[in-house]
Amino acid sequence: MRIAILGGDGYCGWATALYLSSKGHTIAIVDNFSRRHWDFELGVQTLTPIRPLPERLAVWQQLTGRSIETFAGDVTDYEFVVSMMQAFEPEAVVHFAEQRSAPYSMIDQKHAVFTQVNNVTGTLNLLFAIREVAPDCHLVKLGTMGEYGTPNIDIEEGYITIEHNGRRDRLPYPMQPGSFYHLSKVHDSHNIRFACKIWGLRATDLNQGVVYGTITDEVQYDEALINRFDYDEVFGTVLNRFCAQAAIGVPLTVYGKGGQTRGFLDVRDTVRCIELVCLNPAARGEFRVFNQFTEQFSVLELAQLIQRVGSEMDLQVEIEHLPDPRVEAEAHYYNAKHSKLTDLGLKPHLLSEALVNSLIEVAIRYRHRINPALFTPQVNWRVGRNQRSTAVSTVDREMLVGNEPISPHAS
Amino acid sequence: MRIAILGGDGYCGWATALYLSSKGHTIAIVDNFSRRHWDFELGVQTLTPIRPLPERLAVWQQLTGRSIETFAGDVTDYEFVVSMMQAFEPEAVVHFAEQRSAPYSMIDQKHAVFTQVNNVTGTLNLLFAIREVAPDCHLVKLGTMGEYGTPNIDIEEGYITIEHNGRRDRLPYPMQPGSFYHLSKVHDSHNIRFACKIWGLRATDLNQGVVYGTITDEVQYDEALINRFDYDEVFGTVLNRFCAQAAIGVPLTVYGKGGQTRGFLDVRDTVRCIELVCLNPAARGEFRVFNQFTEQFSVLELAQLIQRVGSEMDLQVEIEHLPDPRVEAEAHYYNAKHSKLTDLGLKPHLLSEALVNSLIEVAIRYRHRINPALFTPQVNWRVGRNQRSTAVSTVDREMLVGNEPISPHAS
Repeated sequence: MRIAILGGDGYCGWATALYLSSKGHTIAIVDNFSRRHWDFELGVQTLTPIRPLPERLAVWQQLTGRSIETFAGDVTDYEFVVSMMQAFEPEAVVHFAEQRSAPYSMIDQKHAVFTQVNNVTGTLNLLFAIREVAPDCHLVKLGTMGEYGTPNIDIEEGYITIEHNGRRDRLPYPMQPGSFYHLSKVHDSHNIRFACKIWGLRATDLNQGVVYGTITDEVQYDEALINRFDYDEVFGTVLNRFCAQAAIGVPLTVYGKGGQTRGFLDVRDTVRCIELVCLNPAARGEFRVFNQFTEQFSVLELAQLIQRVGSEMDLQVEIEHLPDPRVEAEAHYYNAKHSKLTDLGLKPHLLSEALVNSLIEVAIRYRHRINPALFTPQVNWRVGRNQRSTAVSTVDREMLVGNEPISPHAS
Repeated sequence: MRIAILGGDGYCGWATALYLSSKGHTIAIVDNFSRRHWDFELGVQTLTPIRPLPERLAVWQQLTGRSIETFAGDVTDYEFVVSMMQAFEPEAVVHFAEQRSAPYSMIDQKHAVFTQVNNVTGTLNLLFAIREVAPDCHLVKLGTMGEYGTPNIDIEEGYITIEHNGRRDRLPYPMQPGSFYHLSKVHDSHNIRFACKIWGLRATDLNQGVVYGTITDEVQYDEALINRFDYDEVFGTVLNRFCAQAAIGVPLTVYGKGGQTRGFLDVRDTVRCIELVCLNPAARGEFRVFNQFTEQFSVLELAQLIQRVGSEMDLQVEIEHLPDPRVEAEAHYYNAKHSKLTDLGLKPHLLSEALVNSLIEVAIRYRHRINPALFTPQVNWRVGRNQRSTAVSTVDREMLVGNEPISPHAS
């Protein structure tokens, strides 16, 4: 298939682009390098030294003989989206190209407005461009499990049948998102559902859980293909962050009681889900919602798992409970359905001690690139205007001594 | 009370500003005159010759001794919103300042993106500004009954208690909005609910029905205070448009079968609802939703009412069923609750033949300002890029001969 990966230079996008390319699909990466830019803005960097996209793609071609086309541009620019669609003629568009950090969206007014305008505009542009250029093209949109919040009833996949005063209807599942970022994804979902209805577009909304891991078969081929591994308080997802903390012997930062329960999945399952969805497209006019995760854990359960694995590796792993910077229930009912992707054939990589061990090993390998100041949560949901600091302490600076510049790829 | 009316130069905003001023409240109007600008863009004009805002306010002061402050600026400009809040120190902010036409939002990609970015950004700015400047200030936000769509179950006021698999929760009512404009209001509602939760703001979301009428006690004081009366296919709401059509003897344009049922209210009830809500604010942290309409009608029922009243006025009123340019059910279940505002004391002005008669009389008085070409629906929901024409035909041009320039107010 011809598949465009929007945001293909990012964490999930890069892993997906290589996986689909290795499976023989014709891939284009569409990216404006925002994710790399936000690293500079925040004074953070991925644990793993990722290479510039042209270098990544040159190495991929050398190793596999497969070329991946690049469209450098911004999906909030409608003319760009239209010209990309006309030039590449995708059968599916996988849309990862959004600002995807909840803390980033909660920094202040500018970041909240940016996140919502950026995400909503990009998705609207894509809907109009598909309508105009390629109405048969399947939109595969990354949503988030965080759109649902934590209702006191079972979470279904996108829709719920409600009986009320003697009547019944199947309606969109009520959403209670917990950040301006998560809200932007709810806005997208409503917009996409409407576009499918009025224009007969086909779309699948993937409400993805928290992704962990960094290794997929393809990014392992060569260090030049290495994927992002974000450990900072803004972009670092919880399991990856805990592994980085374990690697340098600082306490795992659990927010509040740690009873926050969420859906999780291995990045190797992200890429397989995307292929399954592309190969089994929605019908014309259909707006499908799949919950894309494989297991539920509470944050404290994860911390205890990392502690257990760490101690087997002779690491001293402590757990520190910090005041929760977010406004969220620290203990709650959570039972989210996730059968639609397994029905399509997904065989999950469940979270194992071996996987956690390998992640900690990755973190140990690149521990000289870790700035421990970046673990501390600095974005408080209750504050309208957060001032972040990325200052490196004297002690920390010693840890950074070994932080060598990235050497050019020499394969 | 000190009440800021955002969008106070528009249709509902102007009527509300004068009503609240006459009740002794201290009023500021915040407006960037977008609504007047869109008239130029679309080649349309209000049936009634409205005066520039400074002239309106000068006459109001002459007649009543009450002054209304003006803040000219755009709510999408955060610094402007903050400085307005600091200068005026409102106890309540009534937010009408959005692009409010469904057809306008459906013209093409630019209008859809503009509508959503404009509306969402303005409301986000307001939330941040209230948080920063006046956290006790009550946000009174205009939503729309169109946020709900037409579910096959009763429509509640914002929330619904759902029993599911043996558990139960009170959740936001599922929304199925029918245009990019209506979607923008759903986005706003989600954003406001979240801000109330994390920051303890107080807000009331008024899901307003279709407003009709143009006369309120205050705008009647002097012709210089006259309110808008939009009859065109983009901004003209259905009952006002039908009265204008009856006035010049062209058929009432019913879209499809006309079984589309909606909530309606008299503009005199809009202004009273706003005062009731301001006087009875939401608690800190509370996000209330009230359905602000007084009666349900189908479009065909309204057309038949206008036909009946017209014939008593010796007007020849025909009904023409056009293909529905919108994507909507033309016959459906509809039962929407609306008791919360009557619980607060609203005594509705129900739609009467006398009111329709008076509206047709207004339309007859200004019939020389009607361009019949503007009745024809030109924005089709199924098309991603609509080309509107405002050309006036030869026959129409004769009707426009009497369209004199607005004379300056001379009271």
